[in-house]
Amino acid sequence: MENLKENVAIILPENGLEAKLKLAEKEQRKLRIKLGFDPTAPDLHLGHAVVLKKLKQFQDLGHQIVILVGNFTAQIGDPTGKNKSRQPLSAIQVQQNAETYINQLSKIIDVTKAEIVFNSDWLDSLPFSEVLQLLSKVTVAQLMHRNDFNKRFTENMPIAMHELVYPILQAYDSVQIKADIEMGGTDQLFNCTMGRQLQETNGDEPQIVICMPLLRGTDGKEKMSKSLHNIIGLTDSPNEMFGKTMSISDELLEEYIVLATDFFVAEKNNLKEQLKTENPMIIKKMVAKNIITQYHSVNDAIAAEEFFNNQFQKKNDDNKLFVSIAKSSLMITTSSVVEICHQLKKDSSKTAIRRLIESGAVQVNSIKITDPLEEVKLISDTKIKIGKRDFFNIVNDTE
Amino acid sequence: MENLKENVAIILPENGLEAKLKLAEKEQRKLRIKLGFDPTAPDLHLGHAVVLKKLKQFQDLGHQIVILVGNFTAQIGDPTGKNKSRQPLSAIQVQQNAETYINQLSKIIDVTKAEIVFNSDWLDSLPFSEVLQLLSKVTVAQLMHRNDFNKRFTENMPIAMHELVYPILQAYDSVQIKADIEMGGTDQLFNCTMGRQLQETNGDEPQIVICMPLLRGTDGKEKMSKSLHNIIGLTDSPNEMFGKTMSISDELLEEYIVLATDFFVAEKNNLKEQLKTENPMIIKKMVAKNIITQYHSVNDAIAAEEFFNNQFQKKNDDNKLFVSIAKSSLMITTSSVVEICHQLKKDSSKTAIRRLIESGAVQVNSIKITDPLEEVKLISDTKIKIGKRDFFNIVNDTE
Repeated sequence: MENLKENVAIILPENGLEAKLKLAEKEQRKLRIKLGFDPTAPDLHLGHAVVLKKLKQFQDLGHQIVILVGNFTAQIGDPTGKNKSRQPLSAIQVQQNAETYINQLSKIIDVTKAEIVFNSDWLDSLPFSEVLQLLSKVTVAQLMHRNDFNKRFTENMPIAMHELVYPILQAYDSVQIKADIEMGGTDQLFNCTMGRQLQETNGDEPQIVICMPLLRGTDGKEKMSKSLHNIIGLTDSPNEMFGKTMSISDELLEEYIVLATDFFVAEKNNLKEQLKTENPMIIKKMVAKNIITQYHSVNDAIAAEEFFNNQFQKKNDDNKLFVSIAKSSLMITTSSVVEICHQLKKDSSKTAIRRLIESGAVQVNSIKITDPLEEVKLISDTKIKIGKRDFFNIVNDTE
Repeated sequence: MENLKENVAIILPENGLEAKLKLAEKEQRKLRIKLGFDPTAPDLHLGHAVVLKKLKQFQDLGHQIVILVGNFTAQIGDPTGKNKSRQPLSAIQVQQNAETYINQLSKIIDVTKAEIVFNSDWLDSLPFSEVLQLLSKVTVAQLMHRNDFNKRFTENMPIAMHELVYPILQAYDSVQIKADIEMGGTDQLFNCTMGRQLQETNGDEPQIVICMPLLRGTDGKEKMSKSLHNIIGLTDSPNEMFGKTMSISDELLEEYIVLATDFFVAEKNNLKEQLKTENPMIIKKMVAKNIITQYHSVNDAIAAEEFFNNQFQKKNDDNKLFVSIAKSSLMITTSSVVEICHQLKKDSSKTAIRRLIESGAVQVNSIKITDPLEEVKLISDTKIKIGKRDFFNIVNDTE
């Protein structure tokens, strides 16, 4: 039980999981554990992995994972604020995305043992009269309690009527699937709770809701998300994974140790302890190698570290950009890529450097940057590569 | 045009009707004028007639009336506040109600020339994905501008989600029908305006909205409505029509002259003038006869007046209940039926009178009253009938 609750942010109701597990034992059956996804952006990343690893724990205990592909809703398109509807995906695109997604899932869970269902199976043919029956079970005020709806409503940002229907459909999926548990990130709490409500209205035992914490993106933003360009993808190459992990700020490191690595709890605690005294770069490299080992192999992890180090081997003062960084300052100084490169290559004009960046010739910590105005954090040991041969290293001259 | 605009409360947009009529003339076509109704309570009354007479004017000019039977929505049931859903009607009941309704329509418009359509024809088979497309065109905030939704939302009264869908469906009906004009009471302004919006979104010319005033009920309440038990039904017998009309308070009389009679405008103005000096009872009788003539015949009207007068022929002081009524007081004194009858028949016990009332033996202005606690206005000339033979008359002893 302690293992099952590791890292969990919310369980609803509080002792519901124990009760469900007892019930399953008594009835000698597997629990049905639902994970839903909209096949719109099929690239899985370390944020998804937090939830998937928890799912894997249940699968290893013999329970039944049910992967719900929200292909019905994906075909409609979910507008994200400001009247700007997302282009609906074609059925073929949705199908391809679902396949990609399921392939990626197999990096963490045993897909062959999971039940994979598509909600178009019951939503496509749902008669309008039954849609209205379904809608009659939920009030507007209830939906307006969802944080994002509430914020948009009070700030006079438009909410299209069909957006309000989404949580109800997700809840209806739980009824159809007969879910014992629904899993998701903490941002799914509202929708999963609505599933409990519809199951109860339907006379079924309501599902337990298990929410995992949201891993922040490599930029430190609230949530790792493809649309925020701050993800470490499960299918990223080892070198990409290494570079991206090295690029995270030190304050994110503890979160990544806890949520992104598969060290044992004791090892994680040990690493967190070391963070207080050790150079964070050393621990960041351990985290990066652990991540690569999970999704590729140990050898890939070692090779990636070597590549990273070699790339920045040629270390002399000419190739260092000295900046003053107060070691424990909460302020992080940033500068645009074009500015940094101009500092490093004073003989080139800013226009020339701008073109160079736009042509894709500049990398920061192994990540290609094509926007000259993109802000880069001036963190010690940040690696800048300009063209094929010029490597630079940002050095904190207060150290 | 003056005729067409007589009594109209709202035209939207203001000069839209002129433009539509010109367009019809130019394109040498009839205008399509929509009137929708939910076949839940099929009894038409003088309130409906206000709208229907306007429709008749357009029909007489050669335009196409389209009667929309909302049988789809009626089968779902429309909850009226407080989580209390109305029992959905069966398909057969809806069909019967629709037939009754259309029969009653023929008292005012030429039903054989009208197009009668059922919205189940396009809503029953509307795929869920198209429902969502439809919903995506309207925002929650927009719907919350509807008075009753707004009131319930701000007062924390539940609004079920499917209720929000109703105005959208009514609007979609206008798209399907290709309505040039939608007609209704002023309480339909919001829904009809939504029709304009959906037609525009659909690339069609938006309909003109024509709202007629709401006729108040015989009890002076805001709206004549079957559920408020304050209607004069189009199928009421001549005697019922007469008695009910006589029962309205004097302050309602002008409204009934304007909206419920079919006098010419000059005659109406004349009657309104007479109201200032004449005994209102005389004018009330003219209004009652005019109404009976519209829905029955002149002879029926004369017979009803005779019946009314004869019923209260036997006039002596024993049969009069004197009450003090200040002639132009705004206060109207009321008393329960049981109290009034007890005053009139002091030899009977209150319990006996109560039983008498409950058995249906008591009439006030020719209307059977079975609730002993029903309040009756102590207006001069109010007729009370107890049992088969006892007639009484309320007399204002301040006169």
